[in-house]
Amino acid sequence: MQPLVECVPNFSEGRRPAVIEAIAAAIRAHAAAGIRLLDIESDADHNRSVFTVVGPPQAMMEAAFDAIRTAAGLIDLEQHRGAHPRIGATDVVPFVPLRGVEMADCVTLARQLGQRVGEELQIPVYLYEAAATRPDRVNLADIRRGEYEGLKTEIGVNPDRRPDFGPCRLGPAGATVIGARTFLIAFNVYLTTPDVEIARKIAKTVRQSSGGLRYVKALGLSVNGKAQVSMNLTDFEKTPIHVAVELIRREAQRYGVTIESSELVGLIPQQALLDAAVWYLQLDNFRPNMVLENRLIE
Amino acid sequence: MQPLVECVPNFSEGRRPAVIEAIAAAIRAHAAAGIRLLDIESDADHNRSVFTVVGPPQAMMEAAFDAIRTAAGLIDLEQHRGAHPRIGATDVVPFVPLRGVEMADCVTLARQLGQRVGEELQIPVYLYEAAATRPDRVNLADIRRGEYEGLKTEIGVNPDRRPDFGPCRLGPAGATVIGARTFLIAFNVYLTTPDVEIARKIAKTVRQSSGGLRYVKALGLSVNGKAQVSMNLTDFEKTPIHVAVELIRREAQRYGVTIESSELVGLIPQQALLDAAVWYLQLDNFRPNMVLENRLIE
Repeated sequence: MQPLVECVPNFSEGRRPAVIEAIAAAIRAHAAAGIRLLDIESDADHNRSVFTVVGPPQAMMEAAFDAIRTAAGLIDLEQHRGAHPRIGATDVVPFVPLRGVEMADCVTLARQLGQRVGEELQIPVYLYEAAATRPDRVNLADIRRGEYEGLKTEIGVNPDRRPDFGPCRLGPAGATVIGARTFLIAFNVYLTTPDVEIARKIAKTVRQSSGGLRYVKALGLSVNGKAQVSMNLTDFEKTPIHVAVELIRREAQRYGVTIESSELVGLIPQQALLDAAVWYLQLDNFRPNMVLENRLIE
Repeated sequence: MQPLVECVPNFSEGRRPAVIEAIAAAIRAHAAAGIRLLDIESDADHNRSVFTVVGPPQAMMEAAFDAIRTAAGLIDLEQHRGAHPRIGATDVVPFVPLRGVEMADCVTLARQLGQRVGEELQIPVYLYEAAATRPDRVNLADIRRGEYEGLKTEIGVNPDRRPDFGPCRLGPAGATVIGARTFLIAFNVYLTTPDVEIARKIAKTVRQSSGGLRYVKALGLSVNGKAQVSMNLTDFEKTPIHVAVELIRREAQRYGVTIESSELVGLIPQQALLDAAVWYLQLDNFRPNMVLENRLIE
């Protein structure tokens, strides 16, 4: 099987279909090299689109570069308004190892792409997550502090904001954050109550930032009149879904409620679901080659 | 994706490696047509081998025919002794729909193969399960009643035992049962007790034959000093694994014990595990195209 990476570039355009389509076309032009654009989610309030792309590593770098160049020509951050924080036309570009690829390979990809974007497109690039060059650049939120407008005034004068690649000044395409991270599962749990306070208390217990599970980010929300624990699972191999779900179930019990249902937002690797099945069914002898379909692949 | 069937022929030889290998070679000779021999399980006490073969329907029919012809030349039922009931050198040949194939297609395959085996090899053939031509031939055990020795005396005189194809007399290759059935999952649950009586009581509650779940066969056994509920799940889409496991868990509770672990014997379709994950995680919005790997297949 050929090696595969996922790339999830976020562009600061969620309203003009022609612009979104032009970026999509720049990616689809690499179809012959095995690049597939699986999904585009655009949000008009956020004025932002999230692309999900899968393909072989080197072809992915080329496709991402062309998409960044296209976005830089069509999106002007001086004009851009939207609810979501952003610093660039192409705001964030994470590479995710999927199959036959290590995290180190994705870090290399991120740095190669960053160098090209900085030199050839003259766009400042910050490396983040596993590709970060400094601890204060691991978290996206830290790099994006002050957004485009704040960065524009600071980038030339504050040495802490000097980019990893490219010039120390912002043009209308802004700056781009490029990096490598593990697969992110977006997973929401609905409770049998409309009381959002209960969801907030549970989110606080479950998430890493307030003492909970290491690879869980969580918020309590009210969605369609139901209390929802909204989560990002940032490393499902180390903090599996079922551990988060069963912790939520136990906490909910404390407040006299339980789980009504859950939902996936976007894609999930098959392994994450198989891990849950094996855990709940207590299948101690499970090996991947027991799955029929895994025996059919050359 | 090309259509695929599974074929699980059982041969009455579990002791002579050269015979087992000759039958395997007859199947592997169809590799160029997409036939894969995934597994051979031989049991010396049973004096029997179970082959697991996967491939496209028509090629599978040819491979099964060659295997039956090979077995007929090498296995003599007049000499065969073993703990497992049997009526023929090739004892049973079920076809199982896997992908892009309906049960009706497998019934057609079974009948085509049965006709060829009856006419060209002069071996009596009984059709069973979904391919059966009479209700008293749906169950394998009914067809195999009296085994080779009993059938030999009855086949020429009892009209109820007239085969669906082939002659009304048994040669040293005996008779063969051919049919179509759903995928069978062999699944064992170990309890936190050595008391086999508890496993027997639970098996009785869970299995169809004594009033339990429709597509479950179950026995209580003692395995390595532990009580085990040993099951065959004969239609995991209609009676899912998690329903059987949770019923066992509830019954075990009644006797003050619980489930220690479970184990798969042989292969399981990916769907059966995904169904369990979706149920336990209460993923109401789940669709197969949310699984990343399903989006990578052309």
